[in-house]
Amino acid sequence: MSSPTPSKRAKIIQASPIRKLNPLADAAKKRGIEVFHLNIGQPDIPTPPDYWEAMKSRIPEVLAYGPSQGIPELRAAISGYYTRLGLDILPSQVMITTGGSEAVIFAMMVTCDDGDDILCFEPFYTNYNGFATMAGVNLVPIISRVEDGFHLPPDELILSALTPRTKAILICNPNNPTGTVLREDEVRRLAGICESRGLFLLADEVYRDFTFDGRTHFSVLELPSIADRAIVMDSISKRFSSCGARLGNVIARNEEVMEGLNRFGQARLCPPTLAQYGAAYMYEHLSAEYFKLVSDTYESRRNVLVEQLEGTPGVFFLKPEGAFYATMRIPVDDGDSFASWMLRDFSTGGRTTMVAPAAGFYATEGLGRDEIRIAYVLKEERMMTALSVLREGLAKYPGRKG
Amino acid sequence: MSSPTPSKRAKIIQASPIRKLNPLADAAKKRGIEVFHLNIGQPDIPTPPDYWEAMKSRIPEVLAYGPSQGIPELRAAISGYYTRLGLDILPSQVMITTGGSEAVIFAMMVTCDDGDDILCFEPFYTNYNGFATMAGVNLVPIISRVEDGFHLPPDELILSALTPRTKAILICNPNNPTGTVLREDEVRRLAGICESRGLFLLADEVYRDFTFDGRTHFSVLELPSIADRAIVMDSISKRFSSCGARLGNVIARNEEVMEGLNRFGQARLCPPTLAQYGAAYMYEHLSAEYFKLVSDTYESRRNVLVEQLEGTPGVFFLKPEGAFYATMRIPVDDGDSFASWMLRDFSTGGRTTMVAPAAGFYATEGLGRDEIRIAYVLKEERMMTALSVLREGLAKYPGRKG
Repeated sequence: MSSPTPSKRAKIIQASPIRKLNPLADAAKKRGIEVFHLNIGQPDIPTPPDYWEAMKSRIPEVLAYGPSQGIPELRAAISGYYTRLGLDILPSQVMITTGGSEAVIFAMMVTCDDGDDILCFEPFYTNYNGFATMAGVNLVPIISRVEDGFHLPPDELILSALTPRTKAILICNPNNPTGTVLREDEVRRLAGICESRGLFLLADEVYRDFTFDGRTHFSVLELPSIADRAIVMDSISKRFSSCGARLGNVIARNEEVMEGLNRFGQARLCPPTLAQYGAAYMYEHLSAEYFKLVSDTYESRRNVLVEQLEGTPGVFFLKPEGAFYATMRIPVDDGDSFASWMLRDFSTGGRTTMVAPAAGFYATEGLGRDEIRIAYVLKEERMMTALSVLREGLAKYPGRKG
Repeated sequence: MSSPTPSKRAKIIQASPIRKLNPLADAAKKRGIEVFHLNIGQPDIPTPPDYWEAMKSRIPEVLAYGPSQGIPELRAAISGYYTRLGLDILPSQVMITTGGSEAVIFAMMVTCDDGDDILCFEPFYTNYNGFATMAGVNLVPIISRVEDGFHLPPDELILSALTPRTKAILICNPNNPTGTVLREDEVRRLAGICESRGLFLLADEVYRDFTFDGRTHFSVLELPSIADRAIVMDSISKRFSSCGARLGNVIARNEEVMEGLNRFGQARLCPPTLAQYGAAYMYEHLSAEYFKLVSDTYESRRNVLVEQLEGTPGVFFLKPEGAFYATMRIPVDDGDSFASWMLRDFSTGGRTTMVAPAAGFYATEGLGRDEIRIAYVLKEERMMTALSVLREGLAKYPGRKG
């Protein structure tokens, strides 16, 4: 018989718009071109040296499995982090996951069965697509618009997207890919809808420490009325610039939810053991000052982004409010073609800039084709150069519109 | 409205029979009782110090994301490991995963859609149940029997279990939980069935280096005729006693399969970065001698197990052939009750022994209730004490049969 074929989901799962152009970037580098990576949320902030020291001090004779829910030290440390924020989260309400990625997959699986729906606002973090495919969940998109700074659309629009199979609303706040920070009244609106319609509210709060212009982050954990339905997904990747550690967590006060999460966790045994000691140390010892320093760093880079791109003909976006991303409209026929062209056909002074085409952050076919996402993860001076290269590329791109 | 309820899969996913008795073990320890852990495949073999040195030498300024498929060094090192075994595996045919757990989940997802079937031989590694629930796959069990040393049943029995939705046959070889090593003729039989019926052959070969009494392991990768359908799942957990590192891999020569795997991998970004350097170093530098030493260690413990338990009234098993497990019939009403009783109600000289009830390793309701799995992962002397404690428990257990 002929070769067996892979599953449908293996074929339909989206190739990452953040990573799919990597071969073009590699080829450019081979040609001697310096590539500025504004395509991926990989911070250049040094990982705190304390992390390594804490890990080294715990090297065991046998690198054994840890508890499925994570080591008690880390769960307690995260509980302490929330206590300092004025939020009452018990260690038993924290489950450690293998990265924020697993946190989102588990949150989808614990709330939805195959074929169930989750509402989310597009553009959204592109990997939600992949997680949803793996979990057999349909993401039902509701459009948010660059003209509104990607803030929430009116309730009517949200309510009209609900189906009998909707189990949850999923938000990312502060937002990847838009940099939008939801206001308290917006979070309360969503909480109200979830309460009245019997839905879970899933909140990806990975970027919660990075908010600008004096904003504070309003967590779904602050509303006692939704304690039974709020599920937070988090990660140390951005908070402590430790993307490669692969440690995240899910927080839920609903005991049934936590039991389900724990059973999913038991199946895959445990998250990486040793890194958890390093993470616990950072949660315990890195103070509000550290978070402010990092947030201020991103805020300065955001300012550079705005200075460099505001007023560029055909470029449109509102000032990002947090995280370290901006999604903007640019004057091109197609963001994919533009991003590829920048890597394959363009360079100036031996340099080019890599951006993420935004279409992959939308679920609705055709949306976001004239948008890109920029991650402002480089030092200010490099950001300035990278953006000036980008502006030049935009001016010279043959598929330029208008 | 009332609180939303978790998904069905969160409720039906099996609690790990290996871990679910942990609270009883913890309580016993609090009462001052020493617990011998023969319940979990957690080796006591020291993690090679080279692992830590290799990792420490690669500590970066920023602990960044790595490639989704794993770092090139590790993929090349695994390719080299196979070359030394006489098997031709390219680095591009190796994908690094977060533990063997993710390797199995990805292999299930890349071959099956929701509702598809995978045949497997029970008893099987209990976490396959959890992975299947997460992936929406039905495991269709075919009984193998302790009287046959858990070797394959006749072809008729296997063929009769096939359904129109069967996409793959899944084996674990050497086997967890039985310690059985499939002979070449058995692997060829399965390969023949997969070829004639258009199925994938998924082989969990995590224990491939541990075979006893002069046996050699016959890999599904040795048969060119099934190059397009053989998928191997592997891990460094047992090979290098590095369970807590969470690094595994999937090997496939079918390009379409590898593309699907890579897309699943992109969604979850990457496996833990730094540990991969440690793993690469071990694959490159630990020789056949190291593997022989570890395998001989387990073989000696296997001998202790056989000496200590063979001839115990009511206990029946054939000599395990590899890995470090044995599944045996014991003279009790119910393995769950017995294992719980050992922790809650029994001790001798301040000690007790924890075993895994085998029912959780079966999919067919009612099977394995008078069986337990023993992981022989302790040093010989401790094994001897642990097994003597177990024998005494068996003799005194109130639910003893016969």
